[in-house]
Amino acid sequence: MWFTSDNAAGCPPEVFAALAAANANCIAGYSLPPSEGANETPGYTSGYGTDPLTEEVQARIRRLFGHPDAVVRLVTTGTAANALALACLCPPWGTVFCAREAHILVDECGAPEFFAHGSRMLGVDGPDGRISPQGLRRAVEATGQSLHNMQRGALSLTNVTEAGTVYTAAQTAELAEIAQDFGLSVHLDGARFCNAVAATGATPAALSWRAGVDVLSFGGTKNGLLGVEAVVFFNPNLLENFDFRRKRGGHLLSKGRYLAAQMLAMLEADRWLHWASHANAMAARLAQGLVARGVRLAYPVQANILFPQWDAGISSHLRAAGAQFYDMPAPEGTEGARLVTSWSTTPAEVDAFLNLFQGLRG
Amino acid sequence: MWFTSDNAAGCPPEVFAALAAANANCIAGYSLPPSEGANETPGYTSGYGTDPLTEEVQARIRRLFGHPDAVVRLVTTGTAANALALACLCPPWGTVFCAREAHILVDECGAPEFFAHGSRMLGVDGPDGRISPQGLRRAVEATGQSLHNMQRGALSLTNVTEAGTVYTAAQTAELAEIAQDFGLSVHLDGARFCNAVAATGATPAALSWRAGVDVLSFGGTKNGLLGVEAVVFFNPNLLENFDFRRKRGGHLLSKGRYLAAQMLAMLEADRWLHWASHANAMAARLAQGLVARGVRLAYPVQANILFPQWDAGISSHLRAAGAQFYDMPAPEGTEGARLVTSWSTTPAEVDAFLNLFQGLRG
Amino acid sequence: MWFTSDNAAGCPPEVFAALAAANANCIAGYSLPPSEGANETPGYTSGYGTDPLTEEVQARIRRLFGHPDAVVRLVTTGTAANALALACLCPPWGTVFCAREAHILVDECGAPEFFAHGSRMLGVDGPDGRISPQGLRRAVEATGQSLHNMQRGALSLTNVTEAGTVYTAAQTAELAEIAQDFGLSVHLDGARFCNAVAATGATPAALSWRAGVDVLSFGGTKNGLLGVEAVVFFNPNLLENFDFRRKRGGHLLSKGRYLAAQMLAMLEADRWLHWASHANAMAARLAQGLVARGVRLAYPVQANILFPQWDAGISSHLRAAGAQFYDMPAPEGTEGARLVTSWSTTPAEVDAFLNLFQGLRG
Amino acid sequence: MWFTSDNAAGCPPEVFAALAAANANCIAGYSLPPSEGANETPGYTSGYGTDPLTEEVQARIRRLFGHPDAVVRLVTTGTAANALALACLCPPWGTVFCAREAHILVDECGAPEFFAHGSRMLGVDGPDGRISPQGLRRAVEATGQSLHNMQRGALSLTNVTEAGTVYTAAQTAELAEIAQDFGLSVHLDGARFCNAVAATGATPAALSWRAGVDVLSFGGTKNGLLGVEAVVFFNPNLLENFDFRRKRGGHLLSKGRYLAAQMLAMLEADRWLHWASHANAMAARLAQGLVARGVRLAYPVQANILFPQWDAGISSHLRAAGAQFYDMPAPEGTEGARLVTSWSTTPAEVDAFLNLFQGLRG
Repeated sequence: MWFTSDNAAGCPPEVFAALAAANANCIAGYSLPPSEGANETPGYTSGYGTDPLTEEVQARIRRLFGHPDAVVRLVTTGTAANALALACLCPPWGTVFCAREAHILVDECGAPEFFAHGSRMLGVDGPDGRISPQGLRRAVEATGQSLHNMQRGALSLTNVTEAGTVYTAAQTAELAEIAQDFGLSVHLDGARFCNAVAATGATPAALSWRAGVDVLSFGGTKNGLLGVEAVVFFNPNLLENFDFRRKRGGHLLSKGRYLAAQMLAMLEADRWLHWASHANAMAARLAQGLVARGVRLAYPVQANILFPQWDAGISSHLRAAGAQFYDMPAPEGTEGARLVTSWSTTPAEVDAFLNLFQGLRG
Repeated sequence: MWFTSDNAAGCPPEVFAALAAANANCIAGYSLPPSEGANETPGYTSGYGTDPLTEEVQARIRRLFGHPDAVVRLVTTGTAANALALACLCPPWGTVFCAREAHILVDECGAPEFFAHGSRMLGVDGPDGRISPQGLRRAVEATGQSLHNMQRGALSLTNVTEAGTVYTAAQTAELAEIAQDFGLSVHLDGARFCNAVAATGATPAALSWRAGVDVLSFGGTKNGLLGVEAVVFFNPNLLENFDFRRKRGGHLLSKGRYLAAQMLAMLEADRWLHWASHANAMAARLAQGLVARGVRLAYPVQANILFPQWDAGISSHLRAAGAQFYDMPAPEGTEGARLVTSWSTTPAEVDAFLNLFQGLRG
Repeated sequence: MWFTSDNAAGCPPEVFAALAAANANCIAGYSLPPSEGANETPGYTSGYGTDPLTEEVQARIRRLFGHPDAVVRLVTTGTAANALALACLCPPWGTVFCAREAHILVDECGAPEFFAHGSRMLGVDGPDGRISPQGLRRAVEATGQSLHNMQRGALSLTNVTEAGTVYTAAQTAELAEIAQDFGLSVHLDGARFCNAVAATGATPAALSWRAGVDVLSFGGTKNGLLGVEAVVFFNPNLLENFDFRRKRGGHLLSKGRYLAAQMLAMLEADRWLHWASHANAMAARLAQGLVARGVRLAYPVQANILFPQWDAGISSHLRAAGAQFYDMPAPEGTEGARLVTSWSTTPAEVDAFLNLFQGLRG
Repeated sequence: MWFTSDNAAGCPPEVFAALAAANANCIAGYSLPPSEGANETPGYTSGYGTDPLTEEVQARIRRLFGHPDAVVRLVTTGTAANALALACLCPPWGTVFCAREAHILVDECGAPEFFAHGSRMLGVDGPDGRISPQGLRRAVEATGQSLHNMQRGALSLTNVTEAGTVYTAAQTAELAEIAQDFGLSVHLDGARFCNAVAATGATPAALSWRAGVDVLSFGGTKNGLLGVEAVVFFNPNLLENFDFRRKRGGHLLSKGRYLAAQMLAMLEADRWLHWASHANAMAARLAQGLVARGVRLAYPVQANILFPQWDAGISSHLRAAGAQFYDMPAPEGTEGARLVTSWSTTPAEVDAFLNLFQGLRG
């Protein structure tokens, strides 16, 4: 009953199989006279993201998104993906408009400011963790444009949002259009993008570049990988020296094949969608059970995150029984929690958690 | 015959076994009533380096180095390890003294300058890739100390050096003492520290903190891991907010257990030493064979890197036969190369390479 | 009728006299054998703030504030004073709490973020341009304290506020105490500090260090100087390499004597107070006249800035008659303006402006 | 006998006259109905470099350099001029090639690294303080061009050099051509550009943009001003947000008219040339006298800086008599010094200094 985060889960066995295969078979462009093959140890390949597996990841992501020119780069954390991407979109004197709850604003200890050398993250209001169109328009208009002000920089959306809600393709497009009206490029923090696709039923393309997204942080870690995120530039004009930024950020891994292998494992056979759909289904099961037990949910449950609010005293009861989750602020007399499900959550776990409410008033 | 770099090799199977084990067994601090155990999927643990495997790494490194207070942090690249460490030792207006060939100066695209917000890497002369004591003293003394000058910051050594030579414990201590005379703290880039230990026969302690090293980048990636380096603070006073720097550098992985598992696999059963010793032995075999074939070596071969210089025309012959290596500058009429051996290099590969010289004049 | 800003005014003749005198007499520590004096051109002194006039400024400011250990540094702009000071108080991963309207947040194009390498300015609510105690407490408490969050850094007050109101000594102390409760140091942006002293009748000490201010940006430019601001550290422990920051910020002037001479001219014979009091008095005369003519004032007029709101159409009428001021947002049907008076504003100017309302409905 | 630096001198009276005039007459675009003129205090103008005097500076510099499109910005220090200019020419991961003795490398405490967010200053060899063409070519070629290396950024020349020598127009052009071959833009640190023009007899255009210089730091402070330098962009494509960089560097002065007034005073009636020529003439007189007294000069004296080397013991004798200068390294048995003359140096001072050698062996 471990619901603290989807990154508290381990990884599916397919990921380890892919790593081992990459280790065995990586002899890219390594053509030996047949007679000498016997002298070779397998597993060698070129470094720093120049290996064929990394190339294959780009080809696969282009296909998945139906975008033949997308440029793909791999890094190990969502924070790195977001901060490196934003540094390409926003000058040091620029403002990034994002949701008040956005990871880049609240949970990255200033990484975007660090990588962009001093830019500013500006929280925009909106219901249920989403930026509202009016909120965005108002926030951008309120940003001064004289030499004395931080300038307008970029829009950064998050889908799945930090509140566990999703933007539909239409909602994404509406915000992206406002951004474009003001000349802002659009970043999408997709640490849980697979869950958003699963939740909306939209295609990856519809939820990203077709809706106006220029750069996507396409998350793997929260969907079962050891630690891989892809930065996907749908607008390659915005790359602006991403590769130098990544290298001097210490985010260019020499053995890039092992990042690529993980990502390929997830892209294979629609696993990215199956894993995310499973996580969403477990969240729905949990939500339904909680509501049936009288628990209020602070936000609509649309993907794999829930924010239940139950009577005071219940949290410690649940924890005593082995449940793991984070506390959240909640109205007087109640206790708030955040529950996150993952590819790894089982129906049995969900039901065991729900059973803990027996005899209690949610 | 792949000798471009030790990071072109794959990883030993023990590493994958350790990853899989970590995936299965990670249920730290997760005590369930026995009857509910059946409902649990294994593999959960706390994130961001707070898991028990990461803790175990610190304990093991403390034991290995005989230093009960060392503080250990894991990151995925040597560039991140070096740059984050140096940012703690050197203010933005400080100078880091290092060898002219140092990775931090030549091969990190300015990562140390980025992480330390503008510090300066200053190349110091010395023979065979090592900083000479006189060279260091001269360089530090030449650094002005008025308000107008970049200030003195830190000393950064590299062992194994970029020339494939090693510092003995005594040589390390001599340089560290000079640094201390001038109030500089001492960083050691140990991307190939295991090879240096294997080469010198000194203990890890003797080559590091007992010789005056304050902070060590302890490399795993070039010794067989997928991508893990440990930053080891022997002088915890110098930590100065390392954790904030790591987080906002995007280098705090949520699933830290998989970094820890790799490092533990290497520390287990003295594998770190066996793997490095093997790489060194393969380099020695290669060096001996080359010398026997009349090839000159630009530097003494002391660890797992060689810089042969052979007659013009030979490089393309070798490559046509499947050998992989980097070109290096060399005297007129000759061709230079860099060959690196690894845990994965086989005697058969070495001999196959040497056999390519048949009928040639090195 | 030039009311755009107090920095649109020129400088009192005393300032130019002091500059000329500094030019003639600056032969510090320059003792010549009398017979050779004839060969000397006067006007030489040592550079980069080591001249005796700069030293004298520190002595005078210590006396003015009744603080024998204050450390004083001169720079040419308020932005530099604020940003350099804050960089000493707040790490790159720290948050500076300030008013929503604060110059450091709105009008410095990210200078504090630049000098502190990525810190964050956080706007706190409060009435009439002041931070409210509850607002401050709430904002600080809402700042997370995990490794993932930007940390708590410093409090920055502004007195006179951007709304033209002032903090009393008691109000300053109340906020500073809250800051201290949370371990934050306190910066005061005193671009118009002299006006605040004139308005409150408090002593400079009472409005600064006795109320808990650690570092003050003590403004000269808006009170009649060509371009000089003093950074005053009442808590010298916080200096943390200010001098290196200033030098590498390009803010250490070689001919520092001319900054010092200006500041001394202002400190001489209580001119700092006379000039500021005059500006405040002109603002009061203006306010009184406007109110008498039915104009609404958006904030209480306490120092030398007014925010009148008059009927739509009046602004262009005033401008056609030669009045200069900035537009401000205002309620439907009205027009807002900002008027600033200075040492140089005359009663005749004020009255001429007021006379423009003849026959109009404010 | 004050020869420490040209910035130890005061300022010519014409500068103060110009400041006072600017103070009195600055009522730009301020057209009053005549009858109300009596109510006006003179001296108002718009702020932040939008005043007519600042505009006039640009027009005058365009005329002086015969370049109708040059863009001119004023700042208060040479360090700011250099660092802000270079930040526009060189990315954070770029290398600036400059002389080993360059001010940007040695005397600015890392300001260029700070403003460009981590770029690298690389000292290039050459005789007499000048970069040699071969030295430059070699240094640029030695700069790696892989993703792992700091990239090639810009060339920065200094004229007058730190050794007191000058580049002719032809020498400048030769170096600029090499830079262009490698795609580098060219900055010229002209803190003593007026002295270089006076020394070479070349026109300002010939020594700058006609020779391939893209951006010039055109110094005023060392040629008699209180503290003003002009950044002159001959290639406006390179401006890249200079104005934002200046503002957030705290280098946009509100009362810009007083910077402009100083610069106009220097440009008026060829004073820039007269003052610099005088300084050069005084240096020549000093050099001639020293040589006649057997003193060796470390570098040819071509402008207003001398590096004499005299017998040990003489320095303290000179200082006891009231002479002021800096010590420099010198061959065994001798003492080195740096002497700088200025607009303010008198022949009598020079002769008094030379007379101190009576009875001595230089």
